[in-house]
Amino acid sequence: MIGGGEGAYIGGIHRFAARLDNEYELVAGAFDVNAERGHAFAAQNYIAADRSYNDYQAMIAGETAREDGVDVVAICTPNFTHFPIARAFLEAGIDVICEKPLTTTLDDAEALNEVVRSTGGFLGVTYTYSGYPMIMEARNRVAEGLIGKVRTVQVEYPLEWMATGVELNNQQAAWRVDPKKNGRGGSIGDIGTHAYHLAGYVSGLKVESVMADLATFVEGRALDDNAHVMMRYEGGARGLLWSSQVAIGCSNSLRLRVFGETGSLCWFQEQPNELIYTPLAGYTQTIKRGRDDLFDLTKARTRTPPGHPEGYIEAFTNLYSGFAAALRDRDRQREISGIGAAVPQIYEGLKGVAFVDAVVDSHEQGSVWITPKYR
Amino acid sequence: MIGGGEGAYIGGIHRFAARLDNEYELVAGAFDVNAERGHAFAAQNYIAADRSYNDYQAMIAGETAREDGVDVVAICTPNFTHFPIARAFLEAGIDVICEKPLTTTLDDAEALNEVVRSTGGFLGVTYTYSGYPMIMEARNRVAEGLIGKVRTVQVEYPLEWMATGVELNNQQAAWRVDPKKNGRGGSIGDIGTHAYHLAGYVSGLKVESVMADLATFVEGRALDDNAHVMMRYEGGARGLLWSSQVAIGCSNSLRLRVFGETGSLCWFQEQPNELIYTPLAGYTQTIKRGRDDLFDLTKARTRTPPGHPEGYIEAFTNLYSGFAAALRDRDRQREISGIGAAVPQIYEGLKGVAFVDAVVDSHEQGSVWITPKYR
Amino acid sequence: MIGGGEGAYIGGIHRFAARLDNEYELVAGAFDVNAERGHAFAAQNYIAADRSYNDYQAMIAGETAREDGVDVVAICTPNFTHFPIARAFLEAGIDVICEKPLTTTLDDAEALNEVVRSTGGFLGVTYTYSGYPMIMEARNRVAEGLIGKVRTVQVEYPLEWMATGVELNNQQAAWRVDPKKNGRGGSIGDIGTHAYHLAGYVSGLKVESVMADLATFVEGRALDDNAHVMMRYEGGARGLLWSSQVAIGCSNSLRLRVFGETGSLCWFQEQPNELIYTPLAGYTQTIKRGRDDLFDLTKARTRTPPGHPEGYIEAFTNLYSGFAAALRDRDRQREISGIGAAVPQIYEGLKGVAFVDAVVDSHEQGSVWITPKYR
Amino acid sequence: MIGGGEGAYIGGIHRFAARLDNEYELVAGAFDVNAERGHAFAAQNYIAADRSYNDYQAMIAGETAREDGVDVVAICTPNFTHFPIARAFLEAGIDVICEKPLTTTLDDAEALNEVVRSTGGFLGVTYTYSGYPMIMEARNRVAEGLIGKVRTVQVEYPLEWMATGVELNNQQAAWRVDPKKNGRGGSIGDIGTHAYHLAGYVSGLKVESVMADLATFVEGRALDDNAHVMMRYEGGARGLLWSSQVAIGCSNSLRLRVFGETGSLCWFQEQPNELIYTPLAGYTQTIKRGRDDLFDLTKARTRTPPGHPEGYIEAFTNLYSGFAAALRDRDRQREISGIGAAVPQIYEGLKGVAFVDAVVDSHEQGSVWITPKYR
Repeated sequence: MIGGGEGAYIGGIHRFAARLDNEYELVAGAFDVNAERGHAFAAQNYIAADRSYNDYQAMIAGETAREDGVDVVAICTPNFTHFPIARAFLEAGIDVICEKPLTTTLDDAEALNEVVRSTGGFLGVTYTYSGYPMIMEARNRVAEGLIGKVRTVQVEYPLEWMATGVELNNQQAAWRVDPKKNGRGGSIGDIGTHAYHLAGYVSGLKVESVMADLATFVEGRALDDNAHVMMRYEGGARGLLWSSQVAIGCSNSLRLRVFGETGSLCWFQEQPNELIYTPLAGYTQTIKRGRDDLFDLTKARTRTPPGHPEGYIEAFTNLYSGFAAALRDRDRQREISGIGAAVPQIYEGLKGVAFVDAVVDSHEQGSVWITPKYR
Repeated sequence: MIGGGEGAYIGGIHRFAARLDNEYELVAGAFDVNAERGHAFAAQNYIAADRSYNDYQAMIAGETAREDGVDVVAICTPNFTHFPIARAFLEAGIDVICEKPLTTTLDDAEALNEVVRSTGGFLGVTYTYSGYPMIMEARNRVAEGLIGKVRTVQVEYPLEWMATGVELNNQQAAWRVDPKKNGRGGSIGDIGTHAYHLAGYVSGLKVESVMADLATFVEGRALDDNAHVMMRYEGGARGLLWSSQVAIGCSNSLRLRVFGETGSLCWFQEQPNELIYTPLAGYTQTIKRGRDDLFDLTKARTRTPPGHPEGYIEAFTNLYSGFAAALRDRDRQREISGIGAAVPQIYEGLKGVAFVDAVVDSHEQGSVWITPKYR
Repeated sequence: MIGGGEGAYIGGIHRFAARLDNEYELVAGAFDVNAERGHAFAAQNYIAADRSYNDYQAMIAGETAREDGVDVVAICTPNFTHFPIARAFLEAGIDVICEKPLTTTLDDAEALNEVVRSTGGFLGVTYTYSGYPMIMEARNRVAEGLIGKVRTVQVEYPLEWMATGVELNNQQAAWRVDPKKNGRGGSIGDIGTHAYHLAGYVSGLKVESVMADLATFVEGRALDDNAHVMMRYEGGARGLLWSSQVAIGCSNSLRLRVFGETGSLCWFQEQPNELIYTPLAGYTQTIKRGRDDLFDLTKARTRTPPGHPEGYIEAFTNLYSGFAAALRDRDRQREISGIGAAVPQIYEGLKGVAFVDAVVDSHEQGSVWITPKYR
Repeated sequence: MIGGGEGAYIGGIHRFAARLDNEYELVAGAFDVNAERGHAFAAQNYIAADRSYNDYQAMIAGETAREDGVDVVAICTPNFTHFPIARAFLEAGIDVICEKPLTTTLDDAEALNEVVRSTGGFLGVTYTYSGYPMIMEARNRVAEGLIGKVRTVQVEYPLEWMATGVELNNQQAAWRVDPKKNGRGGSIGDIGTHAYHLAGYVSGLKVESVMADLATFVEGRALDDNAHVMMRYEGGARGLLWSSQVAIGCSNSLRLRVFGETGSLCWFQEQPNELIYTPLAGYTQTIKRGRDDLFDLTKARTRTPPGHPEGYIEAFTNLYSGFAAALRDRDRQREISGIGAAVPQIYEGLKGVAFVDAVVDSHEQGSVWITPKYR
């Protein structure tokens, strides 16, 4: 693992996710820009001292020199460092699990895509919410035609934690409002990309063009903290996306609704064990995670029976276990299938960066329709 | 009453609303384009035979000739007839309660506005949802600064009943998809106007410009059945509006959320007795209709204690009783105040028509920012 | 109407209910024990001065002397006066709509039952909650076997308004805690009877025996304010009933759940437009009031389409309109059918009083199984 | 670990719980009564072959012979085997984590209690639901007086999975309906004990007496599948408990509500990240897991911020990590404090068995008040 040391948030989640299904063992890392603190953290986490590194370059050197070097590295650092770190590991033959957004610029994302292609490495992107079992169920229900041809997608991702100028004394917030470290998109980059990915993941639709109106409500903030985006999908479907970091009352309120010709599906991240399904002329049903009659891929992502809630850590674990499955398939020279085929890889990361670029371009040009370069 | 006879939907609601608070007596009407059927309907509704008229012109003639002629008429006919009927009654000195949208063209709406001005008559518009007590509470909370300066408004009004081509054998649907009878806006005219009005009513904001993407999903339909609208308000707030007639699973799912600098308010029409309020850094609270600690105007619109649900008919009644209060104030040459001052009148109707015009213009011009003529 | 004047709560509800469907005209009454205040109230309510009476005896004298005397009287006075008033009207040939509990003693209830029998009069009892359309739907679903043989009934009716000693300065509360005016049951009489009636109304089950544990939590209160009751029904089903007047957080939180061999039904009074239905091995469905595919009797009790909420006043109106239908059938010497056959009459009132008696007896005897005299 | 091999349910949960916080390493076990199958399972779970044992006696022999023998064993076998296995490990100086109910008879529970006392060993009981962070929050809120003196506790635990005779071909169900393997209580033993424990854990109340009505609805079943229990607590509070295995529509619907003199708390296991709190005369608030202003012990049991759901596995992990904390304190000869002091130990297990005994006795004696031997 790179980053994710003391005081970091997402690194801990990656560790839970690696551990829960017993698919990974955390054996090495460079956990902190402050090497001292990083080593202390490593010691607390049962990492052998000789595998706690000062920085990622040292880790690459050290691990590639070992017989039992790491198979895969998790990159849990601020956005602007994803690119050089991921490139270096891939070029050293070590697979990568990377936080989103993939990079801060589209150029970097394209370059990284080329690195993956040329090295043949694997790069998994942690679009967390696509790991939820009922999202898998929704995706399969759409694909199997249970709601008919999709007409409109409503997706929103409001948060409240940056409703005031928290960046002044919160490190997690500080880099997120610095364009150099975060990239061009504020809320749209941090959380809008999750919403965008989820909408496409479930609906199966490819966006045709986007049109945006960004706003910054907290004084002195350099990036958007509220974004409205209209979307047109190939084939005529329409989408509406709202991301906000200033929506008081919303903890982590990602919500996706997909309406088709013969039914609809609704899912809310804060009650993730339920999928709301309404067939045309039928009654609204609450589909519950854990039941025997769900799709196999849904069941492959579930650990407990109906009514025994799973949550965010389990969703994250599903990505990790999906990455493991993909790597196993690849290593055995089998086609990647099942849950391994359902996890986001480099192209999903590239699409996310292209989406942010298109949204910001649209806004800067006075709200015009823009086609993302990758979609 | 004009229209609202056998088989009509909204006419019955108007009658409930007139009756519930005992503020009106229904004594005359022209209930049906088929006069025969209209008379039969009148008889069933205890209307004296000599006050059941063949058409609105006959009613004006008959009622103005009586000492005890009607004070006010409710117009419950399809959109395109609102204008001539309302004009005729106003010119005859009879006040008007009119369904929305006020007219099918902005020219008509402006002309009607001029009629109201010149005759000094009263024209109340039934933006139903503004009659709910918890909407009044929300409006007062915003006005009193309980959520601080408003940043973003999220309003949506999805319905499912036109998800298929119901207009082929449903009279209620048929005229709603005929531009001549309905006006230029499909979903945006029928229900988007409700959403637009409610957003402004609660937030107190004046729209600056709108940007729209309309779609028609049911084949052969001449008007939009799904509308996405981005809004910019004066002072910098932003809004997002979605109206849809094809959203399977949504019965009458008008939802309004207003986010300010120090709090937020959420309200859902299908659970109208609750207002969800979150103060900055506080917990989300469920504010219940009927409590003693709500605003006086909220309490003036309520009939039952907390936990004894009121609904749509009561909201409609609140408009009717507000119109009655306004008329009483006017007749006694007092300033209109209290609940009488809170009901939508001609200018709200005019704004609604201007909004539809701006939205359709924006869409037809390829999605550009348009400032509605009245707002 | 007797009682229900200035400051009364339930009288106003009766008037809304009488008016909404246009089935009644309020033309006479004795609205207050203080005759002066009663007359003032009558005048405000458009009652002719000569039909505003000093007391119920005067009203009987006055109305029976008129050609156009009242057909039916609504009794909205405290419990202990129901009996003499109802008896007097029935004996004078005037039908009665009476609040519950019918009487304060079982002797009175039996005597009143005999009066009804001997006079052939009609006595409707306002078990309000049985007037909700989705309760009618639930009743029909059980009767049609949609949940199979009933196994267990869970019913609860918690309120919060008497969590402190409000009776010290609240007239509505004061008589409810006075055994002489209220009867032997506190919470069990005031609201437990509603819960008991609803459970039987929907499940179709006849209680075999009850076992109770009553408690009084507010100091100085003479009657129970919290009741736990276990029930055994004929045929082996079991029930659990909780009523409370001290349950902070519960506005009017009557909830009924019926579990059968092949399905279950749940209904919550504060969201009355929905009925939650789960078939064995199927998904939980939200059944919505207003749909075309519900039972005819459900639809006969509904005024608005799905998603346009109806509430407490509409439920009360359904009872009033049911009483009117029953009286019409009787007057035309037809068998009472349809919604007229579904409203609570004298025997339901008698059963309610017998239930309270059995519950209080069980408690006083140290919690033993007791069979109510009428059930 | 003893038991919990292929096809077992709860064993997998124990393994997740042991792993998630990195507090345990699973190194040895006897996973199956069929030793062959047990060894295969061990191999799949990275257990060294020489530490996969044929049975628990072999494991005790093997592990006590090693320097690096296990510290603690998890017992995940059917109820009737808990006693001999736990006794044997404790007597061999190995601490125990045991599923509930502790034993199938009160005699066994008392004997085991004596073993714990005499050996000085540690025995943690997995009353899963007491591991939820918002249950900890509720417990602390009650203890700190935020709802005042408790008046009534409503607790229910309905399930649907045994609504039909699933025991005929489901091993998980089969032993649960066999009195010899399960103990005297059916639903009351399997899930009623959870409800009972949770009610006491949060309310801080000690039961005085119980009164029960048990029923068996599925033909041929030897134990109750539905239980109604009235409870009296010391100090005057009252409780109502419902457990059911035949409640169609209820997945794992444990719900606890505690009403006090100045407030109430409600919690529902299927939405475990929220605690509903209503102060007297205030509004109902949704308290969210993950916030900074919660009690320290709540925060010590949480891993993710508000809105990032945690679930059943995390609750189970909280017990495991609490056991680890308790053992660490004990090993360092410190007083057990913090989360280590909040986990259920032997006496809680004993109380559960005594509760089942009292309930079944009450029922068998025709529903009488019984005081549990331990409470």
